[in-house]
Amino acid sequence: MPRYSINASRLNQTLEELGHLGDSPGGMDRVAYSPEDIAGRDYTIKLMQQAGLDTRIDTAGNIIGRRAGSEDQRPAIALGSHTDTVPKGGKYDGALGVMAAIEVVLTLKDQGHQTRHPLEVISFTNEEGTRFHRWLVGSRSMSGLLEQDDLDAKDDNGHGLGPCLADIGGDISRIGEAVRSPGELAAYFELHIEQGPYLYQSGTPIGVVTGITGRAVFEVEIEGKANHAGTTPMSTRRDALVSAAKLVLAVQKMAAEQEICRVSTVGSIKAIPNAVNVIPGSASIGLEFRDTDMQALAAAEHELRRITDQTAVDDGVDVAVHRHRFTSSVPITPEMQALVAEASVNCGFDWEPLPSGAGHDAQAIAAIAPVAMVFVPSVDGISHSQEEYSTPEDCANGAQVLLELLLLADDRF
Amino acid sequence: MPRYSINASRLNQTLEELGHLGDSPGGMDRVAYSPEDIAGRDYTIKLMQQAGLDTRIDTAGNIIGRRAGSEDQRPAIALGSHTDTVPKGGKYDGALGVMAAIEVVLTLKDQGHQTRHPLEVISFTNEEGTRFHRWLVGSRSMSGLLEQDDLDAKDDNGHGLGPCLADIGGDISRIGEAVRSPGELAAYFELHIEQGPYLYQSGTPIGVVTGITGRAVFEVEIEGKANHAGTTPMSTRRDALVSAAKLVLAVQKMAAEQEICRVSTVGSIKAIPNAVNVIPGSASIGLEFRDTDMQALAAAEHELRRITDQTAVDDGVDVAVHRHRFTSSVPITPEMQALVAEASVNCGFDWEPLPSGAGHDAQAIAAIAPVAMVFVPSVDGISHSQEEYSTPEDCANGAQVLLELLLLADDRF
Repeated sequence: MPRYSINASRLNQTLEELGHLGDSPGGMDRVAYSPEDIAGRDYTIKLMQQAGLDTRIDTAGNIIGRRAGSEDQRPAIALGSHTDTVPKGGKYDGALGVMAAIEVVLTLKDQGHQTRHPLEVISFTNEEGTRFHRWLVGSRSMSGLLEQDDLDAKDDNGHGLGPCLADIGGDISRIGEAVRSPGELAAYFELHIEQGPYLYQSGTPIGVVTGITGRAVFEVEIEGKANHAGTTPMSTRRDALVSAAKLVLAVQKMAAEQEICRVSTVGSIKAIPNAVNVIPGSASIGLEFRDTDMQALAAAEHELRRITDQTAVDDGVDVAVHRHRFTSSVPITPEMQALVAEASVNCGFDWEPLPSGAGHDAQAIAAIAPVAMVFVPSVDGISHSQEEYSTPEDCANGAQVLLELLLLADDRF
Repeated sequence: MPRYSINASRLNQTLEELGHLGDSPGGMDRVAYSPEDIAGRDYTIKLMQQAGLDTRIDTAGNIIGRRAGSEDQRPAIALGSHTDTVPKGGKYDGALGVMAAIEVVLTLKDQGHQTRHPLEVISFTNEEGTRFHRWLVGSRSMSGLLEQDDLDAKDDNGHGLGPCLADIGGDISRIGEAVRSPGELAAYFELHIEQGPYLYQSGTPIGVVTGITGRAVFEVEIEGKANHAGTTPMSTRRDALVSAAKLVLAVQKMAAEQEICRVSTVGSIKAIPNAVNVIPGSASIGLEFRDTDMQALAAAEHELRRITDQTAVDDGVDVAVHRHRFTSSVPITPEMQALVAEASVNCGFDWEPLPSGAGHDAQAIAAIAPVAMVFVPSVDGISHSQEEYSTPEDCANGAQVLLELLLLADDRF
């Protein structure tokens, strides 16, 4: 039995209300720094204040609400996630973790329970990274992982980050002040929808996240020979799109059949000149591999380079492989996993361990604090889409486990 | 022995001079209606006038230079091609046919030879069809094949054809006056570079064109399911780009291995949302088949629909096939082919018969007059590119055959 029951209808009402801000015909549009994002942030700040949290915005634009502990010199335990969305996204991704953290505080307030540790609710800014193509911006600012390249990034119209940060109450010239040191937080707990189908398919209400997958992103450029589609015999062609198509299928097979890594995806493709009457002279594809096992990512890169070399020889084209990003996986310690499992059992919920295929603020905060993540089922595994959905019951279950997890950590840390 | 020798150095000098108009770092840019196209037209008009041609611009913007015949009531024999280019094109495509036609007239003038038939040199406007995505606009205007859809077409910025026609001396409100009736022209002869590798590879100086290939253009749209590239298991994906890649390879094999039609090309591709971290939910490809045998084109369409249906079943995606264009092949009569062969032999050149894989103004004019085409070799078969090249000797050979062809026809028609 959990010590206190969270208020499921109150939680789901805040999720609903937040879900009206930025709601558009194709899905949720609360892209970081947009008016809709700012409306969502204002709503979050209002809720935090109603929950009695002492609320501030750090220089990176993260919203931090603090509640004193009975032993207030202790490092704080933080709960959080983000309220920004991808374009045409869903209303659970990120939002659930923030609304549930506030619900946990409201429940403690209702019960008159003061934790030993100070408590923080953090709504990180710009987790999704849509506008400037740089993600986890708030959480990386806090954990000291932000790079100059992130600060220099321009959006697709050539505008910089500074004015955007000012719009949400941050200050790019003082963004270094948002960094927190290891030891400042006793722990960080994040509740999130799974964004995949495993829990939904197995019917398990709670997922104990074992780690956040690493990710390797590549661009492959193919140079063949543009020529007339009507007059050039098939036998003399060096069609870059034909070579690109072979690579799309080979990359897909690397995870689907060869099982070299957990998932492999070619998400983007471009052919030049991309005219129906010209044999494509150039083509490029953007692809990624993900796995919690970094050796699997290394093996995937090795295989990618082998097949691209082979394609160059077979097709008489030039192929260049560019590694754009290589994000290490973030394991979650067995102790933290056990704590989530215990909280789940205390609440009477079955749980299962599973890796996170998506990235989360928790992976940045892991650089400065022990982290744990709680997953709840996503119906049909759909995410980053208008069809993203988690049932009110599953959302409430996740918040309940988050509360119990906080109380366990408050007792023991 | 040909009756008169054309002036090879004069011909190649005009080709050079025309090739300076619109010359840009990536290739020739004389896209129809551009300032560079107009400069090329002005140069052409000046040459026509120097050759003694009575020169006018019809309401469609075609430049027509006329020389009286000794039996001037006869229908005219016309020689011509076009001087517009694709973006980053070459300086021989189209230009050779116009410059050679003028050289033929200059040679007759030098020799004081008046043909029985009146003679016309025609430089058709907008053969390539780049800006409004409608091609053979000048020659189809003359042969009555222009459709309302051609007149209504907008460029990529939403501008219409009317002001463009006015810029080159045409008049869209009176474009119907450009139509000529069957019988007005005794014949139309077009010299052109092959734009393919056959003559170059065989070392044959003259190609006798047997027909102009038909062309079927399709767009295939694939609807799968967009989802998170990190969290969605390989087994549950409906990746539209994977299905598109299979179709790219299948279409290529239809000509390259199955030999269902002469050439098959997927020239364009699009994935949506085209982001590396999202499984493509939609994809589309643009493709075409070409063959002089219309039954081969029908067989290709049948096979395309079979493989797309199969892909839909195999991959659990929705596939729609749209036929965008179906241009019939244009055969050239055995009599006209024989006349080109005879002219070639008279000039002392080997010749071989071959189909035209590309489209030409001659295929539109075939609706109102007997047509013949003379091909000369393209080095390495390259066309629509800065690297397009035909040797000065080959260009002169073609002009020599064009003159002899005209004289044979003038004797016999």
